[in-house]
Amino acid sequence: MAAYSSYEFMRVTFPSVYVAHLEINRPLKLNAFSRPVWLEFGSVFRQLGDDSDVRVVVLSGAGDRAFTAGLDVTAANSEGPLSGEGAGDLDPARKAKALRGHIEEFQGCISQMERCEKPVVCVLHAVSLGLAIDIACCADIRLAAADARFAVKEVDIGLAADIGTLARLPKIVGSTSWVKDVCMSARDFSAEEALQVGFVSQVHEDKARTVQAALDTASRLAEKSPVAVQGTKELLNYGRENSTAAALRYTAVWNSVALQAGDVPSALMSVFSKKKPTFEKL
Amino acid sequence: MAAYSSYEFMRVTFPSVYVAHLEINRPLKLNAFSRPVWLEFGSVFRQLGDDSDVRVVVLSGAGDRAFTAGLDVTAANSEGPLSGEGAGDLDPARKAKALRGHIEEFQGCISQMERCEKPVVCVLHAVSLGLAIDIACCADIRLAAADARFAVKEVDIGLAADIGTLARLPKIVGSTSWVKDVCMSARDFSAEEALQVGFVSQVHEDKARTVQAALDTASRLAEKSPVAVQGTKELLNYGRENSTAAALRYTAVWNSVALQAGDVPSALMSVFSKKKPTFEKL
Amino acid sequence: MAAYSSYEFMRVTFPSVYVAHLEINRPLKLNAFSRPVWLEFGSVFRQLGDDSDVRVVVLSGAGDRAFTAGLDVTAANSEGPLSGEGAGDLDPARKAKALRGHIEEFQGCISQMERCEKPVVCVLHAVSLGLAIDIACCADIRLAAADARFAVKEVDIGLAADIGTLARLPKIVGSTSWVKDVCMSARDFSAEEALQVGFVSQVHEDKARTVQAALDTASRLAEKSPVAVQGTKELLNYGRENSTAAALRYTAVWNSVALQAGDVPSALMSVFSKKKPTFEKL
Amino acid sequence: MAAYSSYEFMRVTFPSVYVAHLEINRPLKLNAFSRPVWLEFGSVFRQLGDDSDVRVVVLSGAGDRAFTAGLDVTAANSEGPLSGEGAGDLDPARKAKALRGHIEEFQGCISQMERCEKPVVCVLHAVSLGLAIDIACCADIRLAAADARFAVKEVDIGLAADIGTLARLPKIVGSTSWVKDVCMSARDFSAEEALQVGFVSQVHEDKARTVQAALDTASRLAEKSPVAVQGTKELLNYGRENSTAAALRYTAVWNSVALQAGDVPSALMSVFSKKKPTFEKL
Amino acid sequence: MAAYSSYEFMRVTFPSVYVAHLEINRPLKLNAFSRPVWLEFGSVFRQLGDDSDVRVVVLSGAGDRAFTAGLDVTAANSEGPLSGEGAGDLDPARKAKALRGHIEEFQGCISQMERCEKPVVCVLHAVSLGLAIDIACCADIRLAAADARFAVKEVDIGLAADIGTLARLPKIVGSTSWVKDVCMSARDFSAEEALQVGFVSQVHEDKARTVQAALDTASRLAEKSPVAVQGTKELLNYGRENSTAAALRYTAVWNSVALQAGDVPSALMSVFSKKKPTFEKL
Amino acid sequence: MAAYSSYEFMRVTFPSVYVAHLEINRPLKLNAFSRPVWLEFGSVFRQLGDDSDVRVVVLSGAGDRAFTAGLDVTAANSEGPLSGEGAGDLDPARKAKALRGHIEEFQGCISQMERCEKPVVCVLHAVSLGLAIDIACCADIRLAAADARFAVKEVDIGLAADIGTLARLPKIVGSTSWVKDVCMSARDFSAEEALQVGFVSQVHEDKARTVQAALDTASRLAEKSPVAVQGTKELLNYGRENSTAAALRYTAVWNSVALQAGDVPSALMSVFSKKKPTFEKL
Repeated sequence: MAAYSSYEFMRVTFPSVYVAHLEINRPLKLNAFSRPVWLEFGSVFRQLGDDSDVRVVVLSGAGDRAFTAGLDVTAANSEGPLSGEGAGDLDPARKAKALRGHIEEFQGCISQMERCEKPVVCVLHAVSLGLAIDIACCADIRLAAADARFAVKEVDIGLAADIGTLARLPKIVGSTSWVKDVCMSARDFSAEEALQVGFVSQVHEDKARTVQAALDTASRLAEKSPVAVQGTKELLNYGRENSTAAALRYTAVWNSVALQAGDVPSALMSVFSKKKPTFEKL
Repeated sequence: MAAYSSYEFMRVTFPSVYVAHLEINRPLKLNAFSRPVWLEFGSVFRQLGDDSDVRVVVLSGAGDRAFTAGLDVTAANSEGPLSGEGAGDLDPARKAKALRGHIEEFQGCISQMERCEKPVVCVLHAVSLGLAIDIACCADIRLAAADARFAVKEVDIGLAADIGTLARLPKIVGSTSWVKDVCMSARDFSAEEALQVGFVSQVHEDKARTVQAALDTASRLAEKSPVAVQGTKELLNYGRENSTAAALRYTAVWNSVALQAGDVPSALMSVFSKKKPTFEKL
Repeated sequence: MAAYSSYEFMRVTFPSVYVAHLEINRPLKLNAFSRPVWLEFGSVFRQLGDDSDVRVVVLSGAGDRAFTAGLDVTAANSEGPLSGEGAGDLDPARKAKALRGHIEEFQGCISQMERCEKPVVCVLHAVSLGLAIDIACCADIRLAAADARFAVKEVDIGLAADIGTLARLPKIVGSTSWVKDVCMSARDFSAEEALQVGFVSQVHEDKARTVQAALDTASRLAEKSPVAVQGTKELLNYGRENSTAAALRYTAVWNSVALQAGDVPSALMSVFSKKKPTFEKL
Repeated sequence: MAAYSSYEFMRVTFPSVYVAHLEINRPLKLNAFSRPVWLEFGSVFRQLGDDSDVRVVVLSGAGDRAFTAGLDVTAANSEGPLSGEGAGDLDPARKAKALRGHIEEFQGCISQMERCEKPVVCVLHAVSLGLAIDIACCADIRLAAADARFAVKEVDIGLAADIGTLARLPKIVGSTSWVKDVCMSARDFSAEEALQVGFVSQVHEDKARTVQAALDTASRLAEKSPVAVQGTKELLNYGRENSTAAALRYTAVWNSVALQAGDVPSALMSVFSKKKPTFEKL
Repeated sequence: MAAYSSYEFMRVTFPSVYVAHLEINRPLKLNAFSRPVWLEFGSVFRQLGDDSDVRVVVLSGAGDRAFTAGLDVTAANSEGPLSGEGAGDLDPARKAKALRGHIEEFQGCISQMERCEKPVVCVLHAVSLGLAIDIACCADIRLAAADARFAVKEVDIGLAADIGTLARLPKIVGSTSWVKDVCMSARDFSAEEALQVGFVSQVHEDKARTVQAALDTASRLAEKSPVAVQGTKELLNYGRENSTAAALRYTAVWNSVALQAGDVPSALMSVFSKKKPTFEKL
Repeated sequence: MAAYSSYEFMRVTFPSVYVAHLEINRPLKLNAFSRPVWLEFGSVFRQLGDDSDVRVVVLSGAGDRAFTAGLDVTAANSEGPLSGEGAGDLDPARKAKALRGHIEEFQGCISQMERCEKPVVCVLHAVSLGLAIDIACCADIRLAAADARFAVKEVDIGLAADIGTLARLPKIVGSTSWVKDVCMSARDFSAEEALQVGFVSQVHEDKARTVQAALDTASRLAEKSPVAVQGTKELLNYGRENSTAAALRYTAVWNSVALQAGDVPSALMSVFSKKKPTFEKL
């Protein structure tokens, strides 16, 4: 845990073996993201990805008021891409280069969560606006507390969401009529509605119970072969993005080495012996 | 409105500011499509797309009996691709060239609706067969009246739907088991079933109420920044069709200029001042 | 039927005209797949695809205990990719080449079902584990009996599913949160849950009634124009895998010859005459 | 020929049967392109594509001084995208929408040449700057006169070429080191250099001889089966843009009808009889 | 060698260790391909691919008169796709299905050469028409004898080449102006011209010397690590067909197991010891 | 220049305004790459990309003996991916994860050169083996000194090149027969041969003259509008990797803001006034 003690806005705890619980930890600001927050967010996921003592990550907001209220608009207004700060009398093409740089840095930090090879279980609760959806789209499994209040809020501050929601949401929820409705209208939607369209796959009574459900799921995943679980994540992401023919070939190449792990004999033996298998670190 | 008065089969009205209501207007023929109808359909969407006084389009059929009964089979039987008219003693390759030309012209007119950069809210009601589904697939948000009777009817006239349903439906509805069932069997399905699988995102009691719901949605969208709303449409369509990595890059390039609009400061100011923002034409 | 009498593990019957019922026929082993089983599975689908007396295939397991329990783990343990048999002292790269070969052979046999140009209606019932899901993903229409017990079981034997589930499931079910949950946790899910997320499109009381529903669907499809039905299957698969623009073009090229079939005039005439059309073999 | 008499800047003649010679006809302005010129360019290629009396198009500039000097910079300076005309006090996002519209209209007109299903043989001579390269990239066969002076000139007026050179050149010339050199430096290159890198495939002494060589090639192509020649163009373009697997499948679908033309028996018979075959119009 | 003795039209010899020389062996018919020939061609490449005693394949025609004259037109005229045999009174769509089947079978046999994981060095000599080019496009390294007479001949029998030339040639030769010229005109081109445009990479005086050069190349390749050589073939083919980003990722996954072969230490040791390394079979 | 003084293996000088000359600076080791070298290589290109005082980069090796001898095999043998160091008794799947990580880190550092938005002119001289080709493939313009000795050397140490050569070379040189020959045989090739196939676009007498030619080219590029030059690089790279239709659209979006730079009016004015334009930093 000491390894994760230097972050200011990210709190990491280890509620059970191989399970890390990451909290966005800026509750007084409703866990809103200024630039230092998203830089830490990228770093902590890089570190969790490299840490062979971590097999599953549970992500939530700290406190009861918000998963995250999204972009810290006040900060954005006084620094960075939206403030025009330093842009002075640059022409639009030169401003665009700076803006592109800012957006890609921001995207890169959030995408680090998707690139992390371990499963990430995301607990959405209370205020879950704007960037909350970009982040949730990078998770593998999404759970919501009944009090979650969602909105793809960006249109209401005059912009199209650019940190990942529009790139990923049409691929991870089945009904594009619903996707376009919520993205273009910026209207609120509830946990119940999120469940119905398949954006989240479970809803629980309150934050505490949702976190508990996420930790239970995480513990079960952490007991499985990490070669199998991480391979499954990689291959599902590949399958979503590529043609079936390409995905079948990639799968064969990937598994041609994964099957040489010790995990298959361990798991098979445990099936026959009915004893719980243990798996080497990965 | 005068600008739209020359169409024979397309009626355009402006129920509220920035909102156009387009009706397929051939009620005596159940709004069925012959070639002149689809040529006008393409033209009117090109015009609506270019008209900076229009920010949202609501589409419905005229009258209570049909959104559209689809292809005007009688007309098709006496002219154009299916009639064999003029094909005389051409060999199959030469006939194929003509057929390809006809299909691509027809596809091009209907696709004009998807290419229109403004959101299109589609009200499906009563008879909604065959081409009705091709058209609905080009909409952004789909609403249905409870009396809507849907079918991907083409198989019943001996052909695979070729104006867009088979290209788009697997991407806009989550359950391919359902998609293949309705497309291969040509069976009817109800508004309720359409809602359940996510083909439409709302069902209302009757046509009038559904049109009203669509107009309300449209009005809300029309009040938003058109730079934000149209960018959201563009980026969601791009996200559906491309890999996540490509979509993130395209988003950054797109927003590098969109963020230079006056809309972001206007919207931000309105957030702080709690006054409704106004946005320049686009 | 004699043409199909040489298979040991595949039983083919013809319950109605143009409809073949294929059963995985190894009930004493819960229809589990060893290498001879999957080789026959590939062959029988190749044969059904080429047989112009077959227009629709219904697939189920033989007996009441299982659709299939998946890979025959005992056999796999003593032969083939997972057993290490013959691999002796090969280095990992050389083992990988053999494993890749085994996986691609196995994938190839199962994919033969998707490549079969006729619609395949899949009846899932009782034990439906592991490979059952890979197979179901290759079907066009999926029905389940209420007693179906599903699991993407592979993680529990230490591997990522590599026969198609991970390549296809994210494209055929709308909620990726659910897809990742069941694929990474290997947990059971019921027919009811499968229906809710759209993995299957109907649930019936028991196996007999589900088979009957599948045969009814199959009979209806078998009465339609095979040019229209098989074209619809081809174009929906193409639409799922390719961009909309590419799919529209492919559709135009495909239909430029399909529309020259005798089926369109036959079908149109039957619409006007209200008599059932008949269609030539394909 | 009367059919082509209404163009102001496009001259079409018919030097031999089935061969059209199109000249960019604004010699006093070095055949430079203002908006009316590119609109006509798009129209004439649409018309040539639809004209079944045309099987091959030869394209050159009128007069001896230029194929084309490219964009008519004086006109561009006083109207359209580069002039800022009418853009007044629009914000950069709104200006961008107008610019995007202008660029896509211009691209669309030039791309019409690539979309024309007949082979286009392009004769490059004397001044061949800027847009000359965008246009040449849309041709099928490129010939140059020894006096041709080429340059991808756009960088010298402060912009990246946006009418097609940068999208197509890396796919039609083998050496990207050369491609990047000429595109980034805007330096001149000669017919000889163009031949050496494969941008053109023949160089002749002067314009007259190059036109003659192009017409000879065109006459030979015009004697072949138009089903075969136009199919070859379509499939080569598809092969350049798509994976081999996709291209093989598309080829099979395309030829499944093309082979039903009367052209194959005609051509085969002529092989055996040593008589020149004739082919129906297409 | 006995293993290869059952072929009628394919002769396989083993001129040096790990090197197979495959000859198309129907010299009295100028090595023309009827259906039995291409079925054997596919089979022999499948066998060579699986044979761990083979590391490189050299392909030539038997006899001095031809590599191959291409399709056996007389046979084609009396059977199969072009003869209309058995097609009787089928409608064009039903004929098309049969034609598609024939083309894909034929393509599949020739593509087997590209799918073979070992390098194939192709010696082109004397008559090398039509199918000769489709075949050569599947080779890795192409050498020509000075007497080679090439033509993409298909247009002259009224069809677009459909066995692979049009899908592959634009990707393997840099100058599309040249590619379109030879494919649309069906004109002859010489070994010298083939060298200049990069279609072949060496020309030798006569067939004997070219075969010798090919065998020398083959012997050198056969001495290298087969893990390295076959991986290089796989990754170059992948690089040609996919984006750079995808190819880099695929390379990393592929080499993550290939680097665990014994070949790297063997090769490194030989670098330091200056002794020739030996490599295990693959 | 002080900004670049902390690198140990990278020397950066500024021979003329806006032109940076980067030298791989480890001449005693023939500029071979160990891990610290490639980490610096990535960093320096990130810094050059961000430095608005740099418009063009010239890359060469330090000293006269080598551009680079490639991977530092001695270092690789005692640390990192090829040494097996620390891999101990890991199973092949766990080793593979570590290897994948190493390869992707190494690829990422070299790819930084391609991602740098400024043109990179690469001077290849003397020993230019293995990694030299991976690096050269990331350059925009490649020049060679007559003494350059090239080889894609990786096969000779038992591996397929995995740092980019196999992903990029088939896309940047026209003749795949040549590409496969040099990549599979690991044979040497000369500057002359590299010129002939288009791998480099100029050859000069010796290193000094080649560097001078590169600096001259760089100076000319540095005088141009950086908006135009960098846009050209971006759009050519995009055109190489994407379909023409996608590239045209991306071009329109990109230029919709680039054309709003002050560079177009500056450049146009200079065309009319014949005075050299100056351009703002980018």
